[in-house]
Amino acid sequence: MKVHYECLTCMATQCQRIAEMATQDLELRKKAMFLAAKLIAREYHENAIPAIAGSLVFLELYKFLGNDDPFKKYKERSNAIARDVVKLLKEKLDIDFKTAVKLAIIGNVIDFSVGFSPEKLEEEVEKMLSEELYIDESDELLREIKRARSILYLTDNVGEHHFDAILLEKIKEVSRAELYIAGKEGAIINDVTVEDLKRDGFERFGRIVSTGTRIVGVPINDVSDEFRRIFEESDIIIAKGQGNFETLSELKDERVFFLLKAKCPAVARELKVPRGALVCMRNATRR
Amino acid sequence: MKVHYECLTCMATQCQRIAEMATQDLELRKKAMFLAAKLIAREYHENAIPAIAGSLVFLELYKFLGNDDPFKKYKERSNAIARDVVKLLKEKLDIDFKTAVKLAIIGNVIDFSVGFSPEKLEEEVEKMLSEELYIDESDELLREIKRARSILYLTDNVGEHHFDAILLEKIKEVSRAELYIAGKEGAIINDVTVEDLKRDGFERFGRIVSTGTRIVGVPINDVSDEFRRIFEESDIIIAKGQGNFETLSELKDERVFFLLKAKCPAVARELKVPRGALVCMRNATRR
Repeated sequence: MKVHYECLTCMATQCQRIAEMATQDLELRKKAMFLAAKLIAREYHENAIPAIAGSLVFLELYKFLGNDDPFKKYKERSNAIARDVVKLLKEKLDIDFKTAVKLAIIGNVIDFSVGFSPEKLEEEVEKMLSEELYIDESDELLREIKRARSILYLTDNVGEHHFDAILLEKIKEVSRAELYIAGKEGAIINDVTVEDLKRDGFERFGRIVSTGTRIVGVPINDVSDEFRRIFEESDIIIAKGQGNFETLSELKDERVFFLLKAKCPAVARELKVPRGALVCMRNATRR
Repeated sequence: MKVHYECLTCMATQCQRIAEMATQDLELRKKAMFLAAKLIAREYHENAIPAIAGSLVFLELYKFLGNDDPFKKYKERSNAIARDVVKLLKEKLDIDFKTAVKLAIIGNVIDFSVGFSPEKLEEEVEKMLSEELYIDESDELLREIKRARSILYLTDNVGEHHFDAILLEKIKEVSRAELYIAGKEGAIINDVTVEDLKRDGFERFGRIVSTGTRIVGVPINDVSDEFRRIFEESDIIIAKGQGNFETLSELKDERVFFLLKAKCPAVARELKVPRGALVCMRNATRR
């Protein structure tokens, strides 16, 4: 997916959020935004992919601000709460494969940092579970998983990955495929890093791999050779969230299943779904 | 007032709104936003004044989009509703000078285009009237008006100017000063133009003058010679809204009274008031 007309404002808003999280110094924030304006003007063009253009801008801002992980505290809060919510859900619900797919998508939706209690968020998740997915190709996903010898699972945000763990468990139950779980090489906004996956014991599901880059999604020209090999050899690729969609939708690769909420008008337009729709869909079937 | 760190995001948001109002063509909107990114990178710097930087960007966007007045319909709607609300208010209320000042500020607050009925908006205005101004130097303003031989009134947005008419009437009642009412030379966002003032009969209060430019506020190096002469010779200058504040606060000129709502964090920070505060204050008394 290439940039849409709304991406400029969104990139500026995210830069502002980074400046606000990185420092209390108003002068430094302002100087960072002067730089952001120049970086955005450079990266926002006809051929740009939003996740990649954004990442390049954000990483230069991190350097300028002298803060290599402005979302650190935000991620810690999200992580602690999401873990508790998932614990409550597992005690309470009888989870089949389709429910696990839905939970993985719902994990992409919730902002765990808003300060609600785990109990309140657990209720909210249950409410969302009662709704249908706008596009639901989870039966096909299940069929492919059963058939696959190797599966690559691309994570998205911190917190959400505890919901991914529910789906990863289900995959292990129905498949003997080799399972790879990918995180980013280092901190970028609130994305899951390989460190996060290791800390939270994701080896129990399969092999943890780094995309080899801090750029959001799968920027195929920037990933490590090892990651590219795993990517090329996987029978099925499960791609969580908008960043993975933005980068992988370019490849028209039928092995990819997108699990996400169309959070922004650009992604919704690209998917031809209403904004806010939850989807589990195979790549290239609708384009 | 120079730009703050939040101005980048705000400029981008306004450019997006302009593109959306100017055309339904998504490709043209996107190309306009590519241009906007470059224009903003050029105009957003340490010495920029937000109202001026914004105007320069917006006017180039208008040209690129082939639409010289994207806010035309928005202004027409605002104008019709504000006129009806003011009619209702004048039938219902007993308006003294302080109330007229408050009404002029409240006119700066309301978005008349939201589709509420005049009756509903009239109710809302009455509710706001019951609140105190956060800074209220209207007694001093009244004293100065009574003493002045010439007064310059700088308008802000279309719709709001019908509320200004209430204050202009009051000024006429207590003062024999020569009264100048200024609008912009041509369309810029939803600002009042000289054409608007003429159409709505503002000659009944005094002489209608153009600032001589389409740039928002009073960009002192860009105004016409005639306007500059009037500006320099006025005993009192009543400046409505943020654009006039942003440009005139630079001059530290005690003749200026600002009547506005601190709508954005940057202006609120500059004025040392909470965001959303309504103020009637003399320039340079608090800085």
